Amino acid sequence: MTDKKNVAIMGAGLVGSLLSLYLAKRGYAVDLYERRPDMRTTDLEEGRSINLALSDRGWRALKGIGIEEEMRKVAVPMHGRMMHDEQGNLSFQPYNKEGKAIYSVSRGGLNMALMNISDQNPDINYHFNRKVLDVDLCENVVQLRNSETGAIETIQPEVIFGADGAFSMVRGAMQKTERFNYKQSYLNYGYKELTIPPTAEGGWALEKNALHIWPRGSYMMIALPNIDGSFTCTLFFPYEGERSFAGIKTKEDLHNFFSEVFPDVLPLMRDLAQEYFSNPVGSLVTIKCFPWSYKDKAMLIGDACHAVVPFYGQGMNAGFEDITVLDQLLDNFEGGNWEELFKAFEQSRKPNADAIADLAVMNFEEMRDKVADPHFLLRKKIENKISEQYPDRWIPLYTMVTFTDLPYSYALEAGQQQDKIMKKVMRYINSVEDYDKLEVQKLLEKQLVKKEKLKPHKA
Amino acid sequence: MTDKKNVAIMGAGLVGSLLSLYLAKRGYAVDLYERRPDMRTTDLEEGRSINLALSDRGWRALKGIGIEEEMRKVAVPMHGRMMHDEQGNLSFQPYNKEGKAIYSVSRGGLNMALMNISDQNPDINYHFNRKVLDVDLCENVVQLRNSETGAIETIQPEVIFGADGAFSMVRGAMQKTERFNYKQSYLNYGYKELTIPPTAEGGWALEKNALHIWPRGSYMMIALPNIDGSFTCTLFFPYEGERSFAGIKTKEDLHNFFSEVFPDVLPLMRDLAQEYFSNPVGSLVTIKCFPWSYKDKAMLIGDACHAVVPFYGQGMNAGFEDITVLDQLLDNFEGGNWEELFKAFEQSRKPNADAIADLAVMNFEEMRDKVADPHFLLRKKIENKISEQYPDRWIPLYTMVTFTDLPYSYALEAGQQQDKIMKKVMRYINSVEDYDKLEVQKLLEKQLVKKEKLKPHKA
Repeated sequence: MTDKKNVAIMGAGLVGSLLSLYLAKRGYAVDLYERRPDMRTTDLEEGRSINLALSDRGWRALKGIGIEEEMRKVAVPMHGRMMHDEQGNLSFQPYNKEGKAIYSVSRGGLNMALMNISDQNPDINYHFNRKVLDVDLCENVVQLRNSETGAIETIQPEVIFGADGAFSMVRGAMQKTERFNYKQSYLNYGYKELTIPPTAEGGWALEKNALHIWPRGSYMMIALPNIDGSFTCTLFFPYEGERSFAGIKTKEDLHNFFSEVFPDVLPLMRDLAQEYFSNPVGSLVTIKCFPWSYKDKAMLIGDACHAVVPFYGQGMNAGFEDITVLDQLLDNFEGGNWEELFKAFEQSRKPNADAIADLAVMNFEEMRDKVADPHFLLRKKIENKISEQYPDRWIPLYTMVTFTDLPYSYALEAGQQQDKIMKKVMRYINSVEDYDKLEVQKLLEKQLVKKEKLKPHKA
Repeated sequence: MTDKKNVAIMGAGLVGSLLSLYLAKRGYAVDLYERRPDMRTTDLEEGRSINLALSDRGWRALKGIGIEEEMRKVAVPMHGRMMHDEQGNLSFQPYNKEGKAIYSVSRGGLNMALMNISDQNPDINYHFNRKVLDVDLCENVVQLRNSETGAIETIQPEVIFGADGAFSMVRGAMQKTERFNYKQSYLNYGYKELTIPPTAEGGWALEKNALHIWPRGSYMMIALPNIDGSFTCTLFFPYEGERSFAGIKTKEDLHNFFSEVFPDVLPLMRDLAQEYFSNPVGSLVTIKCFPWSYKDKAMLIGDACHAVVPFYGQGMNAGFEDITVLDQLLDNFEGGNWEELFKAFEQSRKPNADAIADLAVMNFEEMRDKVADPHFLLRKKIENKISEQYPDRWIPLYTMVTFTDLPYSYALEAGQQQDKIMKKVMRYINSVEDYDKLEVQKLLEKQLVKKEKLKPHKA
């Protein structure tokens, strides 16, 4: 089978499936090719995270195809971080003074919802169980193996979108072209998913509307609520060292470790040992590359060109924002030059993808270590006060990233400026009350004038 | 054919061939597998640079197998840089106050000399025309296609050394293992090789014992002497832009460009247009990765794990120094644990490989731009004076890299310290005579005390 008119999307994950809807809306006939079976009829987990934090950038893209409201129904709002210390004491830190939330959603649930909507569109066709064997970018010929029948299929779409994730085969083909810049870097940490099941009454064993963090300095655990009353916990832990995945060999090691550092959660994890010793350790990779496209033939999108570590909860959101940006560019495309479109897209998105990749790595330290530091918490309170007093001139970094559509690159830069200012301001501050001191106010005014030079531009 | 006792070296280039001699000396049976035909019996150039600058680190490794003297005979010493300005005026800058030189050698000539010596050793066997199809690192099984017979061969050596260059297949296999950090980054410059043939009398058309540079700010040309009276010139030029490879389309473009910016060399290049329009544009890549080994099975060496851009003339020298370091580690190996050996090697070499990669990129700016700047040249003279006055406390960066075996990482760090000091010192200096001013001497004494903290350790 050879078909020259279609647009092909390699990968039917979250980004691929959502992209298909946007492209179909524009009048393209879209074929999606997915290595895995249809997740709506099979029960396959491949070690991917079970739930994700959906925030404004993601919602915006869902709204664009009218499924925002439907997804809100199955999303659990989280209004802030709930910190658990080693004695089991809790402290809550809201994400935003207006009570805005991020939303815990099921990766599979969201993906299946997108598939169900796409499937109703006659211009969108899913092809599951298709493993990419070879991508010839010069001719845009892709060879696939149908893993059900064993047959080799050849397609020749007009353009290819590589939405095939961090280990993208389309990117693999681009890597063999001239002058392709590429970087994959791993943290020395892995992650393991564990479960807090619902209570006997069917409710949530911890505060439902929060993202729970057990910050422990060099490592941490987090938990996100699921709609069924359970929480999915993720332990981020060094691969090697005294306290590490390598260091926990027996059930006893595991029990001792949890009872010492996560005492409040231990009684809530009924299947801890069983889960711990059977679930895989996932790795944490950042992928950067450039360019993201090959001539007028193929373009990467989502994790395929900018996989990030999960500590800002922005991986999926950044991928969905790619689609929003691409859709804006398609407004002025008029069926024309794919190469120009691809170039405009990668030029626009690359600085933002780099920024969120760096922010995500930086936020790991904040989550695992700083959130337990009284000085850091005081600084956060002072920042909130500044933001209240100067709402147009000071948007906290987390808010810019999570609750606005300001470019990630702007957020990173503005955040670095804020960091400098806060270092100066905090010299004069030992308590929230110190904020009202005249010298602090004078310093702030002076510093904020400087900050004005940094003007936001649109994503 | 399956053989479990041998050590295999993938790639019979400079590093692979030299490594075979060192391993054979240690009692290993070595098989080398090379994609290309035997260069001693065929005449194939694949766009690789024709000559190279051999300096102390390289000589040291050649000395270790007793072929230093033989190679000196076919090497052309270059005692410094000869700068050519746009009017054709010359100025000479010696590399070193003791008159030490770097040596222009033929890549092919050196490689063939190494092959000829290896071939005499019954424990070393070359297998040419073997294209690696697949490397299974778990079992150390390599599949090769014999490109002469078409036959597929399978080998299973005890260990594999990947000396297969910047586009290493062994590294490609490692890249598929867990947590392999990898980066390839290209400059926006390419290079093209051109020739200045010998004069009618059979001599050199330019000063023989110098590395010639035509620094032109955003681009440059260099020339290295060959033993036959010719020079190989390399034009380093942007791919795109007003003055770029893309900008020169016709013979007229080429002639106008050369007569404007390289007027002195134009009459010396008889075949300029023919060469320019038939020779390929080479790309300039830096490759960094980690780890460099897989368990006790395979280890990368040379360009395969640390390809660098050519602007410090250290690519081959760094690869040869890898062998020197490996040989030192083999002193205490006693037929033991390959994994430990590989780990010790990569731990020792990685910081130095990173340092020379960064130094090489930095030196491009120096060569193409700064060497034409009077302030920079004055600074160089002052540095030489400091080095004369404090020989134990101030070794110029170029000397550390080129004429010592100090670790590259130390040279980089010490060079950055020197840079800071020179920035301070040069505020008081407008001529060489100013060096003797009391305030300069006081400042220097003070700064050099600080520099003492930086103690060299061995490579």
